[in-house]
Amino acid sequence: MQLFLFIGFVFLKFSISNKAYIINFLKFNTMIQFNNLNPEIPYQCLKEKYDEALNAGQQGIEAISISSFNKDISEVNSRYVNLKFISNDEFIFFSNYDSPKASSFNSHNQIAALLYWPSINVQIRMKAKIKKTPNEYNQKYFFNRSEEKNALAISSNQSKKIDSFETVQKNFKKSLRNDDLKECPKYWGGYSFVPYEIEFWEGNEFRLNKRNLYIKNNTCWNHFILEP
Amino acid sequence: MQLFLFIGFVFLKFSISNKAYIINFLKFNTMIQFNNLNPEIPYQCLKEKYDEALNAGQQGIEAISISSFNKDISEVNSRYVNLKFISNDEFIFFSNYDSPKASSFNSHNQIAALLYWPSINVQIRMKAKIKKTPNEYNQKYFFNRSEEKNALAISSNQSKKIDSFETVQKNFKKSLRNDDLKECPKYWGGYSFVPYEIEFWEGNEFRLNKRNLYIKNNTCWNHFILEP
Repeated sequence: MQLFLFIGFVFLKFSISNKAYIINFLKFNTMIQFNNLNPEIPYQCLKEKYDEALNAGQQGIEAISISSFNKDISEVNSRYVNLKFISNDEFIFFSNYDSPKASSFNSHNQIAALLYWPSINVQIRMKAKIKKTPNEYNQKYFFNRSEEKNALAISSNQSKKIDSFETVQKNFKKSLRNDDLKECPKYWGGYSFVPYEIEFWEGNEFRLNKRNLYIKNNTCWNHFILEP
Repeated sequence: MQLFLFIGFVFLKFSISNKAYIINFLKFNTMIQFNNLNPEIPYQCLKEKYDEALNAGQQGIEAISISSFNKDISEVNSRYVNLKFISNDEFIFFSNYDSPKASSFNSHNQIAALLYWPSINVQIRMKAKIKKTPNEYNQKYFFNRSEEKNALAISSNQSKKIDSFETVQKNFKKSLRNDDLKECPKYWGGYSFVPYEIEFWEGNEFRLNKRNLYIKNNTCWNHFILEP
């Protein structure tokens, strides 16, 4: 009986120390949707690592860093977005088309994309050209989203300066009451990129990290091992 | 007694499902070292968020994405490095000075740096100019590192193509036997950057994300609220 009391106590203590972890996992975790995934090796490797990270309880598994260069102001910039789909060989996320990242993509259409899953200590590095998804695609996707998300997409001038967070909330509520929440505005939609380089970096003891690089050469991928 | 058996079983099941998480946390987690932290608001905000993430058990808390632009090949690139120190207002990490990122920094010395802590759903976005740390600083830091890490730094031509991972291991072992592991090679050392822009992005319900931007203007920081 005392033994079970002790076991109960130890696991209760463990459970409390992981409370924030669990709450945030349930609250924020969404997933990447794979549609008709490309059968080529780097895509299959990516799916394998994704499943490993998912099984290890990776939080924010869909968060992908997108780095761009704005030629007009000669500045690199970087931000996380939610990677929503990998459809065959295309990576797709959504954004405001008047945002600073959209200006960067207009001025220089090559980007770097980075996934990092600390639960398995793996990063996946990509280089790609980026373009907008078709208008019909955006309309269809928007139509099936929640009204709240759409009200935010309609009401927010992404990355513009504003006087207060209360104004953000006010504009959001106004949009929720007044706007057609099924009609995708012209200034909102998807971006799609198809990588021409994919590197799988796996952390290892003493920094003897394992690095496998795939470079697309016309229709096939060349494989290289890189020094850590 | 049966109740305690049940409690023990539930927590044991929970513990097993989190096994990968715990093993990786213990194995890979290192920390950022804060030295004489700058008293200005954005630095104090950063420390506050860091402490929150640490308390939430954030894995890979020291992993920072560094994005660069190589003017010679007109290409953006991005990779995670370990952020070792924040000393007053300087962010410091270490690298091979002959690596592709070093070439990028040489051709364009402005970078974007990105921290993301999914346990608290916060990203910290920075823009900065980057430069090498002084040679004496590198020597001193290298002198106090483990022999294994130094053997890897000496023996690896970072990001160069190599025939196999076995050759990486062979070169490492050779360096461990033959090289002076206290002498920092000329091609290895630190990079330091001081941000001129810092944004704190906090995820919120319905994408009503909270965004606080600080832009340095000579000696003071201007604060702005951004639309989500």
